[in-house]
Amino acid sequence: MASSSYYSTPPCAACKFLRRKCLTNCIFAPYFPPEEPIKFTNVHRIFGASNVSKLLNEIAPHQREDAVNSLAYEAEARLKDPVYGCVGVISVLQRQVLELQKELDAVKADLIRYNSVFVPCYCSSSNNGENPETGGDGRS
Amino acid sequence: MASSSYYSTPPCAACKFLRRKCLTNCIFAPYFPPEEPIKFTNVHRIFGASNVSKLLNEIAPHQREDAVNSLAYEAEARLKDPVYGCVGVISVLQRQVLELQKELDAVKADLIRYNSVFVPCYCSSSNNGENPETGGDGRS
Repeated sequence: MASSSYYSTPPCAACKFLRRKCLTNCIFAPYFPPEEPIKFTNVHRIFGASNVSKLLNEIAPHQREDAVNSLAYEAEARLKDPVYGCVGVISVLQRQVLELQKELDAVKADLIRYNSVFVPCYCSSSNNGENPETGGDGRS
Repeated sequence: MASSSYYSTPPCAACKFLRRKCLTNCIFAPYFPPEEPIKFTNVHRIFGASNVSKLLNEIAPHQREDAVNSLAYEAEARLKDPVYGCVGVISVLQRQVLELQKELDAVKADLIRYNSVFVPCYCSSSNNGENPETGGDGRS
């Protein structure tokens, strides 16, 4: 029976959502397994199935998994934050980089000050006041 | 003449691209001026006009400009880098944050070492307890 072959493997999440037959050369099937229906629903809601299919066809097969995962990340971020999406994440990270850079500059400046003001203290009475760093106090 | 009114103001970039009349309540018009046709073309290519219109209708009017700008940023990033889009930018920034955090921890550890090993030198018998840092040499 020809029709039973369609049910031998479950359709991918995309074909199930789009209510279409999942053929062996389905562009979505390797990246949208039936166990992860939300992944496709999110990507479809934000980008549209047709745009995703177009994008996947334009890139090399070995890069498609990364592309789908980045689209899924973007889609999820846009659904959580409809105004900023993952651009909001970029803003937070950019602020974090600026703050860390500022803090690092300040701590480095402290370290430079320490280097110029503080010297190792070897000058106890047991060495007759000599500073091994300078090689003596001029009275020897 | 009724038809001339459509030409009194130029249609927004979205309506011009979609070859439709730009009505006074056009959802795209405030954010896609005719002088910036690429902004709409990019957003349309990645998200689709219908998804963008749906998204704009779901958020408050005062947030729509930010939403359109973040969509335009995402779209441009995806066109530049079809595999990672702006998720690539997020990865770079996350790496930068980790590296800065690591460098900051190392410099802070140096500073703590300086605090415990290097102390201001007040202890020489030759300077009668005076601190050379403050300018006295003990012989004046």
